[in-house]
Amino acid sequence: MPPARDPATLYRAATQGDRAALGRLLSLVERGGGPARQVGRLSFAAGQAEHVVGITGPPGAGKSTLTDRLITEVRARTDAPVGVLAIDPSSPFSGGAILGDRIRMQSHALDPQVFVRSMATRGHLGGLALAAPEAIRVLAACGRRLVLVETVGVGQVEVEIAGAADTTVVVVNPGWGDAVQAAKAGLLEVADVFAINKADRPGAEETRRDLEAMLDMNMHMGAWRPPVVTCVAATGDGVPELWTSIHDHRSYLQDSGELVVRRQKRLLDELHRVLIANLEHQAQTAEQGDRWEQAKTALLKREVDPYEAAEALSTTK
Amino acid sequence: MPPARDPATLYRAATQGDRAALGRLLSLVERGGGPARQVGRLSFAAGQAEHVVGITGPPGAGKSTLTDRLITEVRARTDAPVGVLAIDPSSPFSGGAILGDRIRMQSHALDPQVFVRSMATRGHLGGLALAAPEAIRVLAACGRRLVLVETVGVGQVEVEIAGAADTTVVVVNPGWGDAVQAAKAGLLEVADVFAINKADRPGAEETRRDLEAMLDMNMHMGAWRPPVVTCVAATGDGVPELWTSIHDHRSYLQDSGELVVRRQKRLLDELHRVLIANLEHQAQTAEQGDRWEQAKTALLKREVDPYEAAEALSTTK
Repeated sequence: MPPARDPATLYRAATQGDRAALGRLLSLVERGGGPARQVGRLSFAAGQAEHVVGITGPPGAGKSTLTDRLITEVRARTDAPVGVLAIDPSSPFSGGAILGDRIRMQSHALDPQVFVRSMATRGHLGGLALAAPEAIRVLAACGRRLVLVETVGVGQVEVEIAGAADTTVVVVNPGWGDAVQAAKAGLLEVADVFAINKADRPGAEETRRDLEAMLDMNMHMGAWRPPVVTCVAATGDGVPELWTSIHDHRSYLQDSGELVVRRQKRLLDELHRVLIANLEHQAQTAEQGDRWEQAKTALLKREVDPYEAAEALSTTK
Repeated sequence: MPPARDPATLYRAATQGDRAALGRLLSLVERGGGPARQVGRLSFAAGQAEHVVGITGPPGAGKSTLTDRLITEVRARTDAPVGVLAIDPSSPFSGGAILGDRIRMQSHALDPQVFVRSMATRGHLGGLALAAPEAIRVLAACGRRLVLVETVGVGQVEVEIAGAADTTVVVVNPGWGDAVQAAKAGLLEVADVFAINKADRPGAEETRRDLEAMLDMNMHMGAWRPPVVTCVAATGDGVPELWTSIHDHRSYLQDSGELVVRRQKRLLDELHRVLIANLEHQAQTAEQGDRWEQAKTALLKREVDPYEAAEALSTTK
């Protein structure tokens, strides 16, 4: 008998602990389209993880190794099942995925309580920013009460995916000064915890001071001030303290009532992105066919400007 | 008599050399809406600059000072009128504009052949990425055959605005290693010329080697290999050589026929952005009123998932 492929059967099997079925469900989510929608509907009601932790930062900061260590730390503290999503967005320009050294996370491959899954750009509009929250819900619905989401890079998509987490850890390295300046607009505001990884290298203290100084200037901070934790993922130094900070943030969210507020905001953000993706699909449709060719020709002949061309494409046939 | 405000009168005056009228036209473009559309229509046919040069790079790289020096260099070589747009995008998170030291460009304030204008985020959808090409056309239609466009930062919007230029100069500083790694996905692909500014600081040669090595790896390069020029904007050292590289790139575009191809692609990109902005406006409309409140409530009660909520909002009343 070939393995079941229909979402309902896969979902039933996955919720009963079938790892292969869980993997196939996530593949469906990744690919998008009708089956992904079915998986989404099946997992929505039950798909609330206890804690979703996002791990982001510039390429090369050591996020994979750190995620691997965090899994070890979590497994030493609890027997609860852990889900890990490693997200590899493609560069919008080069088309090539920045592949991390995911292979290291295979150190948990034999642990039945750990499920690691890489996701690449899925082949339809909206891409990973839409797929990630769905994949998190699938993992949660299948009993993974803790979900770690690791994203590569610091672009808009990564910031959006980080926004799908309850707690976002921003990983930086010593001597990151200039990059901080370049990226701070996006990262300061999403960080709940800063991890200075490779802290055995020179400059860790300066980087901590830089981050603390930036936090001092941040007017938009609520009652939680993101702690700055130093660690060395390669050796495991500082990782217990990092996990304690992450855990403290979860307690803060719970106690302050912010957890509910954040999760509601996230759902509305997701609805907004789905609306935009649907509209972009309409735009794609507008950009083909005879009317498109006519509008394009008129624009390139400079007979109409882009706004007039858009108007011609928007009016009903 | 109060100054004329209607676009047609302003446009006539601006094309006849009235600087105040040109400033007001650009304000209309910045504000968006109906008057901006009128300005767009008026300037579209005549609005083709001979050369649009984009200047981008991380905050603090010295782009304003370098732009100022490039104006001096251009003015020493030719008497043609120059238009300068200095674009200040706001951070999507903090809402605050990163203000450069624009004031330095006031060294050309008394030169009637130089027109400098700062633009901030305009208050409607699409924002600067839509306003910038329109503002460039207005400057071109008013006789500014050379237009320099300086953008702050290295985000998606800046990359899009840089894409509105014929020649894009990416400004970096010595010792920029990590930031290069973080940002290279976006910047390597848009750079036509690299300027290593503040090259009197240590590390300029290493940075040049890094950039050249990255260029060696870039498979997507056409016949033009972006030159890497060192300069010191504060003293003017290397600025004549930088301008020569920029000018060489313009000649390359002309001779290879790529100028026409690039400009056509830009117009189609602009049409695409206008279509998306129109659709986003529709999404905004969908996100208000009774139907929105109903969909939102059902989603937050987790009775429907984001896709079902979006579907309910998209179906005709």
